[in-house]
Amino acid sequence: MVADRTRQRAQIVGTGLIGGSIGLGLRRRQWFVTGSDVNPDRTARALELGVLDAVGTDPDAAVTFVATPAGAVTQACLRALEQSGGGFVTDVAGVKGPVVKGVEDPRFVGGHPMAGSEQEGVDGADPDMFEGATWVLTPTTHTDPVAFATVRSVVSQLGANVVELPASRHDDMVALVSHVPHLTAATLMNLAADTALEHATLLRLAAGGFRDMTRIAAGDAVIWPDVCAENRDGILEVLDRLVGALGEVRRVVATGDRDLLLKTLERARQARVNLPAGVPSSEDTVEVRVPVPDRPGVLAEVTTLLGEMGINIYDLEIAHSAEGQRGVLVLVVDAAATGRVRDALHERDFRCSFRPLGP
Amino acid sequence: MVADRTRQRAQIVGTGLIGGSIGLGLRRRQWFVTGSDVNPDRTARALELGVLDAVGTDPDAAVTFVATPAGAVTQACLRALEQSGGGFVTDVAGVKGPVVKGVEDPRFVGGHPMAGSEQEGVDGADPDMFEGATWVLTPTTHTDPVAFATVRSVVSQLGANVVELPASRHDDMVALVSHVPHLTAATLMNLAADTALEHATLLRLAAGGFRDMTRIAAGDAVIWPDVCAENRDGILEVLDRLVGALGEVRRVVATGDRDLLLKTLERARQARVNLPAGVPSSEDTVEVRVPVPDRPGVLAEVTTLLGEMGINIYDLEIAHSAEGQRGVLVLVVDAAATGRVRDALHERDFRCSFRPLGP
Repeated sequence: MVADRTRQRAQIVGTGLIGGSIGLGLRRRQWFVTGSDVNPDRTARALELGVLDAVGTDPDAAVTFVATPAGAVTQACLRALEQSGGGFVTDVAGVKGPVVKGVEDPRFVGGHPMAGSEQEGVDGADPDMFEGATWVLTPTTHTDPVAFATVRSVVSQLGANVVELPASRHDDMVALVSHVPHLTAATLMNLAADTALEHATLLRLAAGGFRDMTRIAAGDAVIWPDVCAENRDGILEVLDRLVGALGEVRRVVATGDRDLLLKTLERARQARVNLPAGVPSSEDTVEVRVPVPDRPGVLAEVTTLLGEMGINIYDLEIAHSAEGQRGVLVLVVDAAATGRVRDALHERDFRCSFRPLGP
Repeated sequence: MVADRTRQRAQIVGTGLIGGSIGLGLRRRQWFVTGSDVNPDRTARALELGVLDAVGTDPDAAVTFVATPAGAVTQACLRALEQSGGGFVTDVAGVKGPVVKGVEDPRFVGGHPMAGSEQEGVDGADPDMFEGATWVLTPTTHTDPVAFATVRSVVSQLGANVVELPASRHDDMVALVSHVPHLTAATLMNLAADTALEHATLLRLAAGGFRDMTRIAAGDAVIWPDVCAENRDGILEVLDRLVGALGEVRRVVATGDRDLLLKTLERARQARVNLPAGVPSSEDTVEVRVPVPDRPGVLAEVTTLLGEMGINIYDLEIAHSAEGQRGVLVLVVDAAATGRVRDALHERDFRCSFRPLGP
């Protein structure tokens, strides 16, 4: 296979879901993409799916993306730096401290795309996966500014929004918004399961709120031993803060300090209400709440109505009341569409309320 | 107003959302319903909405439902027992211990309908609110079996499924599946908000999992001082268990015991996957997962398709991947419809996967 020397060249090490999506995205933007994987079946499939132009290594690649499983990332980055004739190397591991420490090279920039999919493996690869996603880059004092600028530019071409953070800050933050929440959801679920062994009725009392809160515990468990090993210090620190804060809540409940309890919960309510939605411009969106009876076709009626009006639904969920089973359809749409949505829903006899999603 | 002596007679004390829904439900089933409220505007509105046949007290009511705010329940139950000429009394408060202790009367049965609505006040009242809902009754050794049988029968007429539990068990269980999860979600949200004050980027890293987990913290804070005061002991016990379990997770992360961590998370995953959905017959339903691109009309397309086929969607949510923004539409439908749903989705080029929701 003769490489096309007129095109920009990238290399993928590890052609799974993320590596495959990078390959598809770059090829669509006219890059020449070479790829390798410890499993030759995966590169063959990647070639078949149009993820790669060629199988193998490319010493002339401008950028190498290392997208192997977490345990293999550091070695794969060091090898790519050795084999490359001056190109830059980045990775996509979810914990950055160990990688950045293990690959102290001016030509390396750690990265973490906040994207994923239910699908597994290269068959789930999607050229649009990073469109609008946050992609963290973690340059250090050793990093060549040209390496950073180059990786930043390539990642931006994939449609991602780059956030620059020190590796340790990144790891602390994902401990707080991802790792510890996951461990906490699993812990709550196990507490309930322990009790439910004796009392099957318990789970009949578990309504929408509990389901929402424990949903992430249903995710694949296999990745967590690596994540917890690599982000051990960040996770331990956040766990300690959580346990400390729960101790404070315990004290407030035990002493019956109604004002402080109300203030604490009201503060959380405000923060949650203002949590940015996963949409491009959360300052310009509005949340629409529509109580929906439980009968065939009603969700279709609402979503069809909006679809026909050309209104994009950025997010959608059925919120259950704290203790009930009945649903309220919660939609996130452009704020500019508020009036049209209200009129259309009222015309069909749906009740609805609106709340702007501020930044 | 002369009461119709040929109809069964019920009385509502507190004509808000729940009291109003009970009134509507019973009147639809030909009961004669009298109601009172500390606020005469509310009874006037209830009469206007058809919630009541008459305003006032009815000493001949077979059953009185006390549906006042939590703090007023015990006194209102005692008063209803005094004024009633032998009828039975029940309540709808979310914490049962204090009420059952305060109203030790053979003619009283504590109750807690696990139902609610986004709507507030009697204007949100709905005769179908309790259809398929779990309604806990908490008789004691003092309770007249006829009182229990009568209340059970009336509640069943409203379409609810009665679960009988000792008051203390009920309170421990709701501490575990409702009260402590709420306090934990609020605590996590506050930890993130504290950090976000310094680092606005943090919340950009908070993806779907964190949003799901903290969603309940967005609920109204005002009810919680009462709930925490009334279920103080149950909440403190579960908080202690949670903190203990988090300490154990901390130990496993700190020592790097990969096998135990995997086992713990896998156990939680299994339990969450088997958590019954809020649907009448969870053994006969199936979860359908459909990856959906973010464009106008796609949700409508899926829900319309199913609506046109007469397939009821019992539950619906957009599940976000652990770190991504893209959605997977998760639907719960009758297991019997699996084949038809699969064929219809495949015909429209949607990928989908199915998972039975076992008991």
